[in-house]
Amino acid sequence: MSVRFRFDVTARDGLARRGRLVLPHGTIDTPAFMPVGTRGAVKGVTVEQLHDVGAEILLANTYHLHLRPGDHLIARAGGLHRFTGWQLPILTDSGGYQVFSLAARAKVGEDGVVFRSHIDGSPHTLTPESVVDIQARLGSDITMAFDQCPSWPVTRDEAAAAMERTLRWGRRSRDRFLELAAGRAPDVLRPSPEQAQFGIVQGGTYIELRDLSVQGTVGLDFDAYAIGGLSVGEPVETMYDIVAHTAPLLPDDRPRYLMGTGMPDDLVESVARGIDLFDCVLPTRNARNGQLFTRKGPINIKNARFAEDQDPPDPDCGCPTCRRCSRAYLRHLFLSGEMTAATLNTLHNLYFYLDTMRRVRKAIEFGTFDSFKREFLETYSRRQTL
Amino acid sequence: MSVRFRFDVTARDGLARRGRLVLPHGTIDTPAFMPVGTRGAVKGVTVEQLHDVGAEILLANTYHLHLRPGDHLIARAGGLHRFTGWQLPILTDSGGYQVFSLAARAKVGEDGVVFRSHIDGSPHTLTPESVVDIQARLGSDITMAFDQCPSWPVTRDEAAAAMERTLRWGRRSRDRFLELAAGRAPDVLRPSPEQAQFGIVQGGTYIELRDLSVQGTVGLDFDAYAIGGLSVGEPVETMYDIVAHTAPLLPDDRPRYLMGTGMPDDLVESVARGIDLFDCVLPTRNARNGQLFTRKGPINIKNARFAEDQDPPDPDCGCPTCRRCSRAYLRHLFLSGEMTAATLNTLHNLYFYLDTMRRVRKAIEFGTFDSFKREFLETYSRRQTL
Repeated sequence: MSVRFRFDVTARDGLARRGRLVLPHGTIDTPAFMPVGTRGAVKGVTVEQLHDVGAEILLANTYHLHLRPGDHLIARAGGLHRFTGWQLPILTDSGGYQVFSLAARAKVGEDGVVFRSHIDGSPHTLTPESVVDIQARLGSDITMAFDQCPSWPVTRDEAAAAMERTLRWGRRSRDRFLELAAGRAPDVLRPSPEQAQFGIVQGGTYIELRDLSVQGTVGLDFDAYAIGGLSVGEPVETMYDIVAHTAPLLPDDRPRYLMGTGMPDDLVESVARGIDLFDCVLPTRNARNGQLFTRKGPINIKNARFAEDQDPPDPDCGCPTCRRCSRAYLRHLFLSGEMTAATLNTLHNLYFYLDTMRRVRKAIEFGTFDSFKREFLETYSRRQTL
Repeated sequence: MSVRFRFDVTARDGLARRGRLVLPHGTIDTPAFMPVGTRGAVKGVTVEQLHDVGAEILLANTYHLHLRPGDHLIARAGGLHRFTGWQLPILTDSGGYQVFSLAARAKVGEDGVVFRSHIDGSPHTLTPESVVDIQARLGSDITMAFDQCPSWPVTRDEAAAAMERTLRWGRRSRDRFLELAAGRAPDVLRPSPEQAQFGIVQGGTYIELRDLSVQGTVGLDFDAYAIGGLSVGEPVETMYDIVAHTAPLLPDDRPRYLMGTGMPDDLVESVARGIDLFDCVLPTRNARNGQLFTRKGPINIKNARFAEDQDPPDPDCGCPTCRRCSRAYLRHLFLSGEMTAATLNTLHNLYFYLDTMRRVRKAIEFGTFDSFKREFLETYSRRQTL
């Protein structure tokens, strides 16, 4: 690890870790949740509002930005930070998940994936090398190696094949990354050359495949490691089991990132199993559908019982929305189709997620994570209160 | 005028007036522009963001709020200020304009207007008295008398009939308002009982009808007066002429409100003719369509020439959007369909309007309004730069 990337575990409580991750654009406290800014903006909220709710790092989607406005354009604009005005750390994903779920006629081969843009049908190719170059042009702080993320369920053979290909692609991703880092690709515009690269562990729900994947991926000596291929439809207990098995196998001195997870209780459960980083569209997407997370579980603001409810969404919450808005008002805005409803709901949900992580970190520092977790899960009901 | 409503002209420059308007929820500096928060929210922006761009007063639509969520519900919630979280002054319109432009099967008679909701087809009636009661329940600072606003063009006879009916409705509006103010309608919930009431001058583009309307409306002794029935399609020079003729006829010691106007240059031209208050959907609606106002005129952010333009929308602007976002980024967000584009564009346009009014006020204070106006109009081109 160089100065561009430094991770210190500052406290432990069981398997849960409290850490500090130093990146070129700032230091973030872990365990951390990364709001998703797919196309260079978190839907419905501004950069100022992201600061207001306490976001320290954003995730942006390589696939989307490559297609529009294009990574070359963003590089010429000085990289994602200058382009978007978000000056704190950014993680870009590998595009692997989106290319399989969104693109038309995606064909995967050993070299990479050939597909057509979901926007205009134009032909594109992503390879382990091109995905490194694209992320170099975007100038994110953390880049991800290209991976093949199978859907769920898959057979053991399919999972093994995707995992093995991910290892081979990991090798090529790492090689290309080191080539750029060594300045041996001067044709690639790098607005923020001090980047880190994470490898991705695959293997589906098969323990022995996860073992092989960890072994191979760690052998490539990435800056840190992510667990991919979960939160894709498998039962939540299966996910917890795979995380519990896999996380402790990853290097103790590097942050561990569980990709695409999850509900608030999933975050707490996964921290307890040794995870440090999370991203998920749930708080933002569900906000736009009228679902608000509270300490007692999610509520649906559309519900008639909120028509004259003068309480804020969560009476224990200190977010900008709860400080000013009643459930009755938010329901009115939502039913009226006012886009401000999406904004206010998103601010609340992001604050809830980020505040939950603050409470998690505090509990680990105080050595009270176990009791925090118990109380959190006792109060929080996964089932939406209708 | 009671303490609930006080207007002082603090400086004059030609016919332009610099004033201070004291209302139950705060004092506003005039000439003032009122952003439109149709359904209790300015589309795409939060209350905090409205404070950021310097809004001092909002307009809310009586017609929309009466239909959804209903004025009774808002009254039970403590009025519009408590319901929306906006604690500064609010003006509610009379509903007259919306009922003719939006409602289905509106039938106007001497008693009022019978119509069906554009939302669910439910039958409703608005009368001069019910419009006073609805606005009492909403608890706005400034309420408007019920008026009949004809479309354009109209014959002299049609304009005269609408103007005369507006006078009769004005009489009934005023009577009902004074009845409520005197506490003689205890069944009407009044969350913010210290309200003001403005009368509306009609008469289309007919000078002699405007004269009669002013005479009759001022005779009803409202707290202040608005010029209605303009910005409905007539040539802009005609509007300027009617404003130039009508404004000086209105009492000098009361604010004069030009309803529904207009483009930035219309505001400056109308201040020069003695107007103190404005409202218009242009800055917010056009923002959502990608039109940004600048000192040199409007630009359309969709235009291909902005694809790699790293300048802010208006290099001379100090708004939250211009401080952080390039035209290239705003274009990307707009073309991607990101709702944040609407938010950022709206913040810019509102700031531009409100900042223009600040500059107008400053110029009047310094006695330099004439040269300000000349320079503003020389620089500002009404025609959109494509």
